Amino acid sequence: MDSTTPAVAASTSSDVPKITLYWLEQSRSHRILWLLEELNVPYELKIFHRRADNMLAPPELKKVHALGKSPVLTVEAAGADKPIVLAESGLITEYLLEHYGRDTPLLPTQWKEGQEGKVAGETEAYLRYKYYMHYAEGSLMSLMLIVFMMLGMKTNSPFFLKPLVNSIVSRIYSLYITPNLNTHFSFLEEQLKTAPVTTTTTTTGPYLCGDHLTGADILMSFPLMACRGRAEMLRPANFPILYAYIDRLEQEAGYKKAVAKIVSLEGKFSSLL
Amino acid sequence: MDSTTPAVAASTSSDVPKITLYWLEQSRSHRILWLLEELNVPYELKIFHRRADNMLAPPELKKVHALGKSPVLTVEAAGADKPIVLAESGLITEYLLEHYGRDTPLLPTQWKEGQEGKVAGETEAYLRYKYYMHYAEGSLMSLMLIVFMMLGMKTNSPFFLKPLVNSIVSRIYSLYITPNLNTHFSFLEEQLKTAPVTTTTTTTGPYLCGDHLTGADILMSFPLMACRGRAEMLRPANFPILYAYIDRLEQEAGYKKAVAKIVSLEGKFSSLL
Repeated sequence: MDSTTPAVAASTSSDVPKITLYWLEQSRSHRILWLLEELNVPYELKIFHRRADNMLAPPELKKVHALGKSPVLTVEAAGADKPIVLAESGLITEYLLEHYGRDTPLLPTQWKEGQEGKVAGETEAYLRYKYYMHYAEGSLMSLMLIVFMMLGMKTNSPFFLKPLVNSIVSRIYSLYITPNLNTHFSFLEEQLKTAPVTTTTTTTGPYLCGDHLTGADILMSFPLMACRGRAEMLRPANFPILYAYIDRLEQEAGYKKAVAKIVSLEGKFSSLL
Repeated sequence: MDSTTPAVAASTSSDVPKITLYWLEQSRSHRILWLLEELNVPYELKIFHRRADNMLAPPELKKVHALGKSPVLTVEAAGADKPIVLAESGLITEYLLEHYGRDTPLLPTQWKEGQEGKVAGETEAYLRYKYYMHYAEGSLMSLMLIVFMMLGMKTNSPFFLKPLVNSIVSRIYSLYITPNLNTHFSFLEEQLKTAPVTTTTTTTGPYLCGDHLTGADILMSFPLMACRGRAEMLRPANFPILYAYIDRLEQEAGYKKAVAKIVSLEGKFSSLL
């Protein structure tokens, strides 16, 4: 089940830090695979499947990181005693971009000219990128977890309780979930409208930090695709720019490469729970 | 309701970027006030109160940031057209530490000697710090939000539904919340046990990144104090090191200064919902 892409440079393998991605099906980890493909860094892929009985992550993942979640990325540098173990999607994305993405458009330029190191001297594109490193998991995914929990309550309740559970869940949706989702989608629609686009002709439309794909879009792809997969959550008529943007993400060459990688190893790919 | 601490340096006020913290009672924003007090940077404080009817944030916060949440920090540099607006607690903490905390123990040293800029060249203390910048909100707080939602369901259901709602909530606790909380607490207990302590004599016990307080502890203080405030969530007998650590956080001089600041302006302070 393991697989290694060829090293990008002709350096000997002992010079190149060994990166391993612990990838779990239908999880947040797929975007890290996408990022690795975009950055074209050598990596090893370890594939895990969800438990059939409850769809949770398998217990073997706890051997990699005590919380037993995915993604986890390990980095083994030449001569190091032991690998470093990175968890949290936002941190993994930042770590890979800071080490391998500095000269790529995936990491926006940090400073406005002449304002290097100054308070508020950061470009808007960079500040947006940093914001999404935290917002994707800290705000949007935490709301999505509540949505998943409510869906689970509806699905798993015994049939004679279903009407009652459905009515409780509906109340939580109307009081809390739907207004919050709409606030987030309105915010993201506006962010795309006001993205700091620097070229006058762009054929692909705005991304979250400007006129091209960055690590922020890759990190945001998982919760956004999860929203778009459920018509009751995100309707194209209400948020047309956001909806079209999510469609574009799924057409990105790097995303398709990451999907193809999984298909080549597993025979199939499914993005969402 | 506003208040400004004196500028630390004798610089003229127009040179000093103007920092404003939008603080909401009983919210995640209190740790940013703590951080500002630790860093001893000048700031203005704007205080907001929760709505009496539903305890949500007041609508005025939407004028500061479209999501209407707290904390939000604005930074107005001399000569800038408009302030930058920062949301997400992890980002605000990182931003303040990178600009004002570089020479303080609050921000751990980034590189091992001789490994500056190298992949996996970061110190363990720094990697822990970066991890907590994401984990606090992305993992622990998102679990806490589910706990708050369950408590809300129990409190707000009509009396004739209470037995049923309580039994649904109990099931979610036993299947999902309690095992997850225990996994997180065990992980944190172990992190404190294995903190990279560099001094041989420490009277205050370990912090998350080593033998002294860092931004990671400040960011983690809110969800941890929320857990300790509820005996059914975190029992001292099960996680003694973690429990003692949370107690120590509440005794930190900077935390007490932040509390005193609110008491001086509001007449009272309550940390948790």
